Amino acid sequence: MSRIVQCVPNISEGKDLDKINYIIEPLKNQQGFKFISAEPDQNYHRTVITLIGDPEEMIEPLMTFINRARETIDLNHHQGEHPRMGAVDVLPFIPISGIQIEECIHYATLIGEKIAAQYDIPVFLYAKAAKQPNRINLPDIRKGEFEGMKEKIKEEQWKPDFGPQAIHPTFGCIAVGARIPLIAYNIDLDTQDEKIANSIAKAIRQSSGGFQYIQAGPAYLEDKGFVQVTMNILDFKKNPMYRILETVKMEAKRYHVNVMSSEIVGLLPKDTLTDSIKYYEQVLGIAYNKDMTFQEITNKAITYMGLRDFDIYKIIEANL
Amino acid sequence: MSRIVQCVPNISEGKDLDKINYIIEPLKNQQGFKFISAEPDQNYHRTVITLIGDPEEMIEPLMTFINRARETIDLNHHQGEHPRMGAVDVLPFIPISGIQIEECIHYATLIGEKIAAQYDIPVFLYAKAAKQPNRINLPDIRKGEFEGMKEKIKEEQWKPDFGPQAIHPTFGCIAVGARIPLIAYNIDLDTQDEKIANSIAKAIRQSSGGFQYIQAGPAYLEDKGFVQVTMNILDFKKNPMYRILETVKMEAKRYHVNVMSSEIVGLLPKDTLTDSIKYYEQVLGIAYNKDMTFQEITNKAITYMGLRDFDIYKIIEANL
Repeated sequence: MSRIVQCVPNISEGKDLDKINYIIEPLKNQQGFKFISAEPDQNYHRTVITLIGDPEEMIEPLMTFINRARETIDLNHHQGEHPRMGAVDVLPFIPISGIQIEECIHYATLIGEKIAAQYDIPVFLYAKAAKQPNRINLPDIRKGEFEGMKEKIKEEQWKPDFGPQAIHPTFGCIAVGARIPLIAYNIDLDTQDEKIANSIAKAIRQSSGGFQYIQAGPAYLEDKGFVQVTMNILDFKKNPMYRILETVKMEAKRYHVNVMSSEIVGLLPKDTLTDSIKYYEQVLGIAYNKDMTFQEITNKAITYMGLRDFDIYKIIEANL
Repeated sequence: MSRIVQCVPNISEGKDLDKINYIIEPLKNQQGFKFISAEPDQNYHRTVITLIGDPEEMIEPLMTFINRARETIDLNHHQGEHPRMGAVDVLPFIPISGIQIEECIHYATLIGEKIAAQYDIPVFLYAKAAKQPNRINLPDIRKGEFEGMKEKIKEEQWKPDFGPQAIHPTFGCIAVGARIPLIAYNIDLDTQDEKIANSIAKAIRQSSGGFQYIQAGPAYLEDKGFVQVTMNILDFKKNPMYRILETVKMEAKRYHVNVMSSEIVGLLPKDTLTDSIKYYEQVLGIAYNKDMTFQEITNKAITYMGLRDFDIYKIIEANL
């Protein structure tokens, strides 16, 4: 298995576990890719599913999965906190290793065309797969949600990329796309002062002049009794973890606050860690070994970046 | 003198010193502001003039200065390497202390209106003073230069903000605006390897994912035998000097290269230095004194940031 993508479909059902299990069943025990998790959220009334493996092998099982969602979810009777426009709301392909974003765009376009042809569902290509600038940003497409899309889709600028120019009566419509991995990274500070976390977040985030691919803010962890700088890294090649961590340490110094540890939420590609391990080993004058085992990568990442609650299965490729 | 701006008119004459002296003479020995320098460049065929002080007091002397440029410079007989569209090509007001950008926009608009009314010269409001998005960026306005503006100004989208919709036959037209100070800052590395300076520049500059208000690249100083990361800081409040310097040091560590010193090209407002001195004193646990003398600021900036070839007269406010 040399080409690995992460595929993260989201379905608009987060309460009825029997229904969820029926819909996701075609994605389990398949050749060529692995079913990693299904995470239902009752408040969101939404389930996030994670698959890892060869995108070619995912296509037909995903088609069956979408068909089961079409049969069983009716958005006319759906209310949840998370915005949604489709029974399967969004279907992104994310390159992890041995594959480029261009191939992910290819598979997104391929399955998008099939969904429209076989199920009469309008399909919007989004993110890197977008063919029009107004479709790069998913919330722009989804604005108005299931209810509003009934009229919105009739506008020339919101004509779907594939399928009819009218929503499916119960399914709605779907966004299919390709995007680079997003890393959810939090840095723990040994203080309870949220203002300090906020000042540091402002120093590093794009919206207030910081690094281009960083979204960041403060968070107080009540159960743990300390604050975090909580962030998304939208492009880890251009804004590597070590650079953000070291910049946070540098800013924290003026408040006489220490970085205690850091944490990854969800999974991340191996390269996010090895890129940063390489920095620390260069600084230390240690020869960098590009053929480390997943366990070695895990140990070094914990040592150099103080990762807590981390194990090798947080590395996407280690799950295969 | 509580409100201080820097005003930097550029005239399209860089060779004839008698003519330059005649044009700039009304700007010298005035009440309320100080004539700092006139820097003619023969290749550019252009002179950059620097004034510092109260913008209110600058208006009438600037009007006389513009009138003298109108009498003596004919752009039909002007060739130089620097693009130009007017005898006085550009007139920016830059807030330094005790004044906000809004007031600078006010004075730019005021003198722009007077120039058009008294001398029949078309005026474009640019940068923060722009009233149309196509006029924020000076090169967009000036594209086509004196020769091309004859036709371009007739287009609806290039109708001047004040004055006739036709260039002045010898003066051309002028851009008047307000902008925040730009800091030209270079950091010296103890290596001759330009690739290292380039890698570090890529890590910090906006165009490759770094800090939002940083333009940076590598430079080899042949006479000195080392490389620099050379940069413009476009907004020193959002990207303070200390943050850039410390990030450069952090990146340099992986190459086992040291930051030896740094340098400021041109003048800079006091706050650019005190903002960074404050960071270093907080880190060191030294009580920050907000009422330092210019000499103290200079000494501390040299100590903390390794500034070379620096003296108090590089601080704009120290010249008054």
